[in-house]
Amino acid sequence: MPSDHIVSSYSDELIQLAETIARMGGQVEVAIEDGTAALLKLDRELADKTVEADRRIDGMQRQIDEMAVSMIARRQPMASDLRAIVTSIHVASDLERVGDMAKQLARRSLKIEGLNLQPGFYNGVKNLTALVMSQLKDALDAYAARNAEEAIEVCNRDDEVDAMYTSLFRELLTYMMEDPRNITPCTHLLFCAKSLERIGDHATNIAERAYYLQTGKQLSEDVEELQRTQIRV
Amino acid sequence: MPSDHIVSSYSDELIQLAETIARMGGQVEVAIEDGTAALLKLDRELADKTVEADRRIDGMQRQIDEMAVSMIARRQPMASDLRAIVTSIHVASDLERVGDMAKQLARRSLKIEGLNLQPGFYNGVKNLTALVMSQLKDALDAYAARNAEEAIEVCNRDDEVDAMYTSLFRELLTYMMEDPRNITPCTHLLFCAKSLERIGDHATNIAERAYYLQTGKQLSEDVEELQRTQIRV
Repeated sequence: MPSDHIVSSYSDELIQLAETIARMGGQVEVAIEDGTAALLKLDRELADKTVEADRRIDGMQRQIDEMAVSMIARRQPMASDLRAIVTSIHVASDLERVGDMAKQLARRSLKIEGLNLQPGFYNGVKNLTALVMSQLKDALDAYAARNAEEAIEVCNRDDEVDAMYTSLFRELLTYMMEDPRNITPCTHLLFCAKSLERIGDHATNIAERAYYLQTGKQLSEDVEELQRTQIRV
Repeated sequence: MPSDHIVSSYSDELIQLAETIARMGGQVEVAIEDGTAALLKLDRELADKTVEADRRIDGMQRQIDEMAVSMIARRQPMASDLRAIVTSIHVASDLERVGDMAKQLARRSLKIEGLNLQPGFYNGVKNLTALVMSQLKDALDAYAARNAEEAIEVCNRDDEVDAMYTSLFRELLTYMMEDPRNITPCTHLLFCAKSLERIGDHATNIAERAYYLQTGKQLSEDVEELQRTQIRV
């Protein structure tokens, strides 16, 4: 018989925390889709929607923080649960920053409007968006399922994100050199590309957390070093 | 008579945690100085030193995480201490990202080397560095001293950082339009400017945490929204 008392059990709370992170992840994915669509279609309404979504995402981060702190204080979790709860604080922080990136992509559309931007300039941004979206999705899946192998795959694929970013960077530079009127719009697209590449970095962070939770080991500092922060352009 | 037993007292641990953050902050400040100097002087040795420092800074973040988690688990702190300890996890995360920015500034110097970069292009970067350095220093002071007034001042001054960044952005665009040979080096400087602006954002985050610790209140979401993530260019 289902109980309807207000104080939920510890395991219920752990599940609730995991579900809140999954829900936050879902909202962040929608925000990236909307933010990029706002950018590609120069759609003000969608841009506003993304800004509004970011506000909700920020609120969810605070909620996860509160839940985690309250659980630690009341439940005095054992080592492995404690690590899982603290990790949720870090993952929520990564997701909050991805929400910021989505908002920045959306807002960038307002700056690009009216500039001399040829449709072909967008192709690379579209491809990079598709790639980082799949990285984030897989990282969140690996985190939810505590799947270390999937987490390693996400980390390894970060090289693809970086390669695509580098190639886009160079492509945009050539448009800028061809015609000075392309400089301002392509500079904005360069920053969009950088935002997308950083979303890929956050996906890698989340995958690394998933790996740590499952194995108790950090992915080697050297690998981390290379994958997360190397500048290739 | 001084005790030399290994298990330190709870208040000693709280002090030790605060000192570790202060030390991490100090190392991050040096990393920004070195990273920017590496960029301005195209100094490979200094660039390597900054990359090495970032590795140590990452280690300090892990150390602070471990300390915080271990304290929560063993000491079962009361609400206000608990909040202070959890906040230290967030501040360490901001500092770790500032360390990444410093490394990226340093590494950017290796990309700029040999390009057609006129000394005058650097002036804006120098000024922006000085401003964000003072922002970070004041934010760390406000955090260490739990000084809400100082924290508000740091948040208010973030507008100056953004204004200087916007002006630098526009200046670099004009160099690019004047001569296509300036496009590649100035694009690298644009990213340096963006990294510095982001260091300013992290300083604001730290100041906001300081305000929250002292007052128990969040700086209003609207203010936060405006100051942290608005794109002005």
